[in-house]
Amino acid sequence: MNFDVLIHGASEVVTCTGTSGPAEERLAIQRGASIGINGDRIAWIGVDAKATGTLELDALGGFVGPGFVDCHTHVVFAGDRSTEFEQRTQGKTYLEIAAAGGGIARTVIATRAATEDELIALARPRLERLLRHGVTTVEIKSGYGLSAESELRMLSVIDRLAHETPMTVIPTLLALHSIPVEFKEKRGEWLRIVNEELLPRVAADKLARFADVFVEQTAFTHDEARVCMEAARKVGLSIRMHVDQLTANGGAQLAASLGSVTADHLEQISADGIAALAKAGTIAVLAPTSTLFAKARPFAPGRALCDAGVRVAICTNCNPGSSHSENVFLALGLACVENGLTPAEAYLGFTRYAADAVLEPERGRLAVGSPADLVIYDCPSYRDLPYHFAMNDVAHVLRAGRPVF
Amino acid sequence: MNFDVLIHGASEVVTCTGTSGPAEERLAIQRGASIGINGDRIAWIGVDAKATGTLELDALGGFVGPGFVDCHTHVVFAGDRSTEFEQRTQGKTYLEIAAAGGGIARTVIATRAATEDELIALARPRLERLLRHGVTTVEIKSGYGLSAESELRMLSVIDRLAHETPMTVIPTLLALHSIPVEFKEKRGEWLRIVNEELLPRVAADKLARFADVFVEQTAFTHDEARVCMEAARKVGLSIRMHVDQLTANGGAQLAASLGSVTADHLEQISADGIAALAKAGTIAVLAPTSTLFAKARPFAPGRALCDAGVRVAICTNCNPGSSHSENVFLALGLACVENGLTPAEAYLGFTRYAADAVLEPERGRLAVGSPADLVIYDCPSYRDLPYHFAMNDVAHVLRAGRPVF
Repeated sequence: MNFDVLIHGASEVVTCTGTSGPAEERLAIQRGASIGINGDRIAWIGVDAKATGTLELDALGGFVGPGFVDCHTHVVFAGDRSTEFEQRTQGKTYLEIAAAGGGIARTVIATRAATEDELIALARPRLERLLRHGVTTVEIKSGYGLSAESELRMLSVIDRLAHETPMTVIPTLLALHSIPVEFKEKRGEWLRIVNEELLPRVAADKLARFADVFVEQTAFTHDEARVCMEAARKVGLSIRMHVDQLTANGGAQLAASLGSVTADHLEQISADGIAALAKAGTIAVLAPTSTLFAKARPFAPGRALCDAGVRVAICTNCNPGSSHSENVFLALGLACVENGLTPAEAYLGFTRYAADAVLEPERGRLAVGSPADLVIYDCPSYRDLPYHFAMNDVAHVLRAGRPVF
Repeated sequence: MNFDVLIHGASEVVTCTGTSGPAEERLAIQRGASIGINGDRIAWIGVDAKATGTLELDALGGFVGPGFVDCHTHVVFAGDRSTEFEQRTQGKTYLEIAAAGGGIARTVIATRAATEDELIALARPRLERLLRHGVTTVEIKSGYGLSAESELRMLSVIDRLAHETPMTVIPTLLALHSIPVEFKEKRGEWLRIVNEELLPRVAADKLARFADVFVEQTAFTHDEARVCMEAARKVGLSIRMHVDQLTANGGAQLAASLGSVTADHLEQISADGIAALAKAGTIAVLAPTSTLFAKARPFAPGRALCDAGVRVAICTNCNPGSSHSENVFLALGLACVENGLTPAEAYLGFTRYAADAVLEPERGRLAVGSPADLVIYDCPSYRDLPYHFAMNDVAHVLRAGRPVF
């Protein structure tokens, strides 16, 4: 057996292919296995001392797992919000800062003022840092344009990044991130533009996979979200929603009722909300770095979500306001310490369930025939990742069968 | 003017040399300045387009600051405590785990079983990671030997590391880290060995700068700590103390009364304790990563300590049980978000006040005549460090005038 690429010398291969049982079983670990890759796909996983590769990579006793899927990011933006970070350390809340003209509105001004090339130059090192943390698939949201033209421009930037970066990029239209300042007194007009102009255009030109909405007292109501999400589904987009983050708003139940693929944030989710997600099969996306960074306590009840049988995904939520960090391993560690997940649940949350959350069901697991997106680590077990807290033990990243870091 | 090394192109040089006023003033920032180095010392800081260097380094618009001083670590250890990390995520407390035979006792068994060469091989990558985070001076404690022989062996390992690493290493004897299992029923005998045998030997052979003690209900009482700290001072060692971490124990007042250079941890410090530190000039050393990692809430009242005029230092407290992370920038960020420090206070806490905490008053600041230990960053302001949360923006590290990363 000769493969294009052979990875050998791994302590274990964490395939994330188990479909039932406790999280440790769903990891479906193959101890001492090697991986053969042909082209951009995994051709073989097994133990055979006679296997060879045109390129052979020695994992040197580290473990191998799927490339991470960062299923919720806002890495395209201009400007800086470090002053708001300082204000929050001195006791101001995220909602107070937003009410005083800071928050998303500040990033919108800077992002509108930047050229496409400038936005790409700013996003590139952020994607590079995610890649070095083992991320091979990344979802990127618009939402800092908030005019039809500038939202389309953000999606164009995301598309250009998708073509230049060695990652799979999933674009999301987040035109309902915040009410544009121009539409403060005529919310209905912005909603009409989004529902009647932007969504059909985005769907027709295949500029986004998802439409997204921020359901929050400073953002959009249930009714506004429902109309937009139904309009999105009508034109063929999948939907996902920011809900129950800063205030308890029953958003999880709304997301479940609308057939949203994910319900994101969930710090304030109720028991009814958890039951609704479980019943509907909606994936919970937790962003613990933002709960910490934005001091938007409590942390989402990850333990209760897992116990209810909800698939729980973890993301960085990298953005300039509430989670200014590409540190995947901080998010993984916080998912354990603060959301109450086990290391196995957190690992599944950044691989398999994160892939499910962006409708990439072949990714986030290692199986014969799957895309050869994978990470070789310096440490022998997935358990070391959250334990070596906020530290990066990635040795090599392969995407589509090619070493990219 | 030609120097051995010239650093130019910096947005600003954060000298940390101001001695009064608010923290921002104490940073004593020189905008647009260059730095000239001759030998291992800073020869010049200023603006002069005609300055040249035999080696010239362009900071490319990043800022330059002092090398970090990690003033409280336990990086010499063997073994792994990831299972305890998992137990804590499932609700077990640090004290419960220690009572069940885990905790420090587990690391002691592994550390005693390791050879000196093994301990060095294990510590080396930890120091390397700290160096890559900008640390040029590191304090390292013994305390996982807990017999006279194995404590001396740990200090020997620390000494060997000091000779091979391009960092300044400050050794601390922490023989009173925990009661050795062999002395559970005869505590007095272990205290006698430490006070009458170990301390004089360590002082005579200059194996440590500090003696340290963990004052806690599972460790040592006030009376035990007092006798040991007084014995340490008598033989010429400086003293520092772990106090008020897991339970409020009045340890800060004890540290202040004994002339301890530092009082470390302080999650449970009282108002009286804060006043005592301020009056005595004792430095507060906060370890926010361990408060997070070990779920040993609340976070220490950094804001109140700063407001009381206490010098506050920040450390990683890197160790296998309660803070398994070399991420300096996580500690800096948490100091702001969780301890309530401003970015300027946190930055002083990892430079100037951390240097004061290990009695290295020339380090942790950039002044003519000081050791040329410094960091060139990829970002333009010290404010970016906690804001770019848990991410490492170090571009280059110089120690004693030589590039080491």
